Amino acid sequence: MKFNLRYDTKYLDGFVSPKEMDSIWPEIQKSQGYLTARNGQGKEFLGWLDLPKNIDVNMVRDIEETAQKLRVNADVIVVIGIGGSYLGAKAVVEMLQPEFGEKKIIFAGHNLSAQYIAELLEFLKTKEVAINVISKSGETTEPAVIFRVLENFMRGKYGNDEIKDRIVCTTDAKKGLLKKIAEANGYKTFVIPDDIGGRFSVLTPVGLLPIAAAGINIWNFIAGARTAREALESGTLDTNISYKYAAVRNILYRKGKCIEVLSNFDYRLHYAAEWWKQLFGESEGKENKGIFPASCDFTTDLHSMGQLLQDGERNIFETFLIVEKELNDIEIPFAPKDLDKLNYLTGKEISFVNEQAYKGTSEAHFEGGVPNSAIILPNKTDFSIGELFYFFEKVVAISAYTLGVNPFNQPGVEAYKKKMFMLLGKNL
Amino acid sequence: MKFNLRYDTKYLDGFVSPKEMDSIWPEIQKSQGYLTARNGQGKEFLGWLDLPKNIDVNMVRDIEETAQKLRVNADVIVVIGIGGSYLGAKAVVEMLQPEFGEKKIIFAGHNLSAQYIAELLEFLKTKEVAINVISKSGETTEPAVIFRVLENFMRGKYGNDEIKDRIVCTTDAKKGLLKKIAEANGYKTFVIPDDIGGRFSVLTPVGLLPIAAAGINIWNFIAGARTAREALESGTLDTNISYKYAAVRNILYRKGKCIEVLSNFDYRLHYAAEWWKQLFGESEGKENKGIFPASCDFTTDLHSMGQLLQDGERNIFETFLIVEKELNDIEIPFAPKDLDKLNYLTGKEISFVNEQAYKGTSEAHFEGGVPNSAIILPNKTDFSIGELFYFFEKVVAISAYTLGVNPFNQPGVEAYKKKMFMLLGKNL
Repeated sequence: MKFNLRYDTKYLDGFVSPKEMDSIWPEIQKSQGYLTARNGQGKEFLGWLDLPKNIDVNMVRDIEETAQKLRVNADVIVVIGIGGSYLGAKAVVEMLQPEFGEKKIIFAGHNLSAQYIAELLEFLKTKEVAINVISKSGETTEPAVIFRVLENFMRGKYGNDEIKDRIVCTTDAKKGLLKKIAEANGYKTFVIPDDIGGRFSVLTPVGLLPIAAAGINIWNFIAGARTAREALESGTLDTNISYKYAAVRNILYRKGKCIEVLSNFDYRLHYAAEWWKQLFGESEGKENKGIFPASCDFTTDLHSMGQLLQDGERNIFETFLIVEKELNDIEIPFAPKDLDKLNYLTGKEISFVNEQAYKGTSEAHFEGGVPNSAIILPNKTDFSIGELFYFFEKVVAISAYTLGVNPFNQPGVEAYKKKMFMLLGKNL
Repeated sequence: MKFNLRYDTKYLDGFVSPKEMDSIWPEIQKSQGYLTARNGQGKEFLGWLDLPKNIDVNMVRDIEETAQKLRVNADVIVVIGIGGSYLGAKAVVEMLQPEFGEKKIIFAGHNLSAQYIAELLEFLKTKEVAINVISKSGETTEPAVIFRVLENFMRGKYGNDEIKDRIVCTTDAKKGLLKKIAEANGYKTFVIPDDIGGRFSVLTPVGLLPIAAAGINIWNFIAGARTAREALESGTLDTNISYKYAAVRNILYRKGKCIEVLSNFDYRLHYAAEWWKQLFGESEGKENKGIFPASCDFTTDLHSMGQLLQDGERNIFETFLIVEKELNDIEIPFAPKDLDKLNYLTGKEISFVNEQAYKGTSEAHFEGGVPNSAIILPNKTDFSIGELFYFFEKVVAISAYTLGVNPFNQPGVEAYKKKMFMLLGKNL
């Protein structure tokens, strides 16, 4: 398959000059060099880089078969995880699953809302249930607490024998509390590799099992990522859009554009933006540096954040995430009396109106002083999403190295946990 | 009832000094003066200020009765609106309605996703349906297009007579396209007052009818707002928390803190933050000024945005939105083998763990260089939410005047629309 993401930079004109692009190019090359030679900061976490090419086909088959079994056995599959063990699968599932009616996948352990769990337990009473719990160490508080509560519920509902077929653990290959729990109870396990950080783990069993359990074709998803890997492995600012986007981000940031808004015109990409926020925020937000990642769902948020984007402080740049071809479309019907004066749109499709909203917005924001560019997906398929996710992973590695930070660590995430554990009275 | 929101400023220590507070006080007084004398910029849009006191009781009764009829007649009530005609009701409904199972209220017309509408039409086929369409002019593209599609659907499903009992319009008292449509078809109408802008309209029929249709007690909601109005009408920085929060925001912004993150520890407040983003972004984001409003749902987003908040560029301040008393709670069960090493939490409730996460986070972010304060709600009830919403309305008026802009206009929101209408071929 051909790599078919595009990157449109028309509305960067006057904000990012060809000269600035030329001048940052050696830095981008240096950043790529760290990835090629595997000698940059965080080099022990580069497993994601060639994963789409090297992925274990037997493991993928096993994931698919396991997912199929869970789907047959259960009305609802509860996926327990947080952060990198939540957002990748959540993004893909929300993008591709139907909006209304009952959901096959429900996420939990991604917060400490007692109300959420109380209502979930009530809801699950009358359902057949399976669980996929995801945690490298088994020690992360949210999924650990929620798994304890839900495992208890499952034991009461199904007994010790039957839950073996209904609980699958995604965890470390050898060590950690969740691994021990799985061994003690006879739960099936999948492995989270040591050389891939949480926010880069969507193509490991962490993301693949819940995605497959939602009924999505993970082979296509992986193929999309593989296609992106090949297309983005090398090249120049003109031929490699991961280099170009990484360059643009750094140039704008150095000029005081400290906020990036990732704006879609399809709310189904909402959680793709949430995943992107972790990927970019956690990779770049360190050493008192880093672009602040925000997101908007348009046209919804044009009616809330639109005023500020158009006229507010000019410390913003915008990146549109655009899907060219809508899956289902609706034609605007004719109205004999035309009381709403919309007959000029009769026979047009809603996606056409949405597209003109995008075109109008990108031009208006540009004229209002917001440099913007667009990442364009041909459609919203498993394959395209695979391309998009690998693209973003490659961009953030190049971009963070160019910013001068280690893209693969997260030294700040323990600060609040230490204080929390003290308050909870945990023996540290 | 007593006003029972609190504002905790402990972790502003060293970031906002008593001297700075003293020195901004005359500006805050001047801003309050514009409201009291009704002689500031945008003075024609101050209807929200005394609304909780002056609200027409007969209108509220009519709203309640109408909502009750819709609830009885319909499995699903589709609320069509965008921006200020969407976010207030959405925030309250999402906060107080059950998480799982079928929803009584579905929102539409808040985007141009053809897929959303296609799936909605499919879903509605087997349901009894009612509609509340909300638009001051009837000309806003999204709700107008979606109402045309859904009115067509309703006509096919119920016929011209029966839809009269199933469609309610919230619109201008006299003029506009939606008013004409209502008159021509015999739909019941409620009035959007001329002196209240969209983002301040949650206590008008715009917000009240959908909220009542969700089964929520709007009398309590209004009573909360009324209590807040009285408590926040006058006073000093020490006695009036709307003054204090407005002062803090302006002091921090002048020192380069250009991003405010509204962080909850209860995801049910997610859409309250979306409503807040419109209220603050649209009121302040103009004349190349304005704090960028962002939001986080914790603990979820501590595992995505946490690293950047702790260690990233120090251009951020944080405002926590905290609910003291969780509605339902869940006790963490005992596990005989303690494989997950969580027995130190046995007998504790999940809300207790969540509370320690908040305490740990606020202290850690403070130590990491993020000034933070907290708005504390005693509970998540209709009454408290009414207090909160009025509090924010009062704060933004004071805050925007103190910033030096008109809190009540939105001159930038037409820019993209003009371009879009040209692309759509509309005769302007």
